[in-house]
Amino acid sequence: MLISYWHFSFTVADIQRSVDFYTNVIGMELVHTQEQQNEYTSRLVAYENAHLKVAQLSIGAMNQARSGHLLELVEYVNPHCEPTDTATCRPGSAHLAFQVDDIHTTYERMKSQGVRFKSPPNAITAGINKGGFTCYFLDPDDITLEIIQAPSRN
Amino acid sequence: MLISYWHFSFTVADIQRSVDFYTNVIGMELVHTQEQQNEYTSRLVAYENAHLKVAQLSIGAMNQARSGHLLELVEYVNPHCEPTDTATCRPGSAHLAFQVDDIHTTYERMKSQGVRFKSPPNAITAGINKGGFTCYFLDPDDITLEIIQAPSRN
Repeated sequence: MLISYWHFSFTVADIQRSVDFYTNVIGMELVHTQEQQNEYTSRLVAYENAHLKVAQLSIGAMNQARSGHLLELVEYVNPHCEPTDTATCRPGSAHLAFQVDDIHTTYERMKSQGVRFKSPPNAITAGINKGGFTCYFLDPDDITLEIIQAPSRN
Repeated sequence: MLISYWHFSFTVADIQRSVDFYTNVIGMELVHTQEQQNEYTSRLVAYENAHLKVAQLSIGAMNQARSGHLLELVEYVNPHCEPTDTATCRPGSAHLAFQVDDIHTTYERMKSQGVRFKSPPNAITAGINKGGFTCYFLDPDDITLEIIQAPSRN
């Protein structure tokens, strides 16, 4: 039976660069790191002699429980593979959205940290999140991330 | 300030095929669907004349709150783009892991539903999840998913 999410995961080229980004720019907390170079990991990922560097991050103490909601970052030391095309229109691509309380402040702060945005915050004019604001940006591996400010419930 | 995850999202080629898979095979619940074809969406995703079909899914009532933890599936009607390479060794690729209470039962049931697994469930022999079981499989767009049975805490 399905219980919960366990984690969602991005493969990255440089685990330390990505941990720095998700902690210093996004504001997540590093929970755990480990290297995996063993038989079960090779069977799991279906690559011979797999060697992975893994980091798990969470958002605040609320999500620190082992019940899931972790972000897992994985660097493949072996095999070494070229980056995939992360354009969001391509089936198979992914993005992760974070809720923030003030998107305009967050946008300005991230811009000053050199983050590459696809647009400034956009007013959501239709649909279930009408009244909120949202914009897409890129992480160091060109993975698409999103910040969203929920519509006011007042 | 960072509050929570809002959603994580996969781009899919056929939204109905994917909704069927994530509800009938994974066991998620369809929360909401909408089409987006407007100016704010085009600015957000940075494609002119963007036209998206969107579905939001959750795991049980626990996650139905609007606070996040939704899985968003997006079909791009326009632009129409070719699938990306979802090999997990490639930087920029993603996967999503679900916790289940009995991975062997879930594996057999999913196999009988035609799900393509990268391996049968593997005993986790090292690291933070030692004592658990895990395996990777593919969704209809070759997006990598994972089921994991947590280590017994007894």
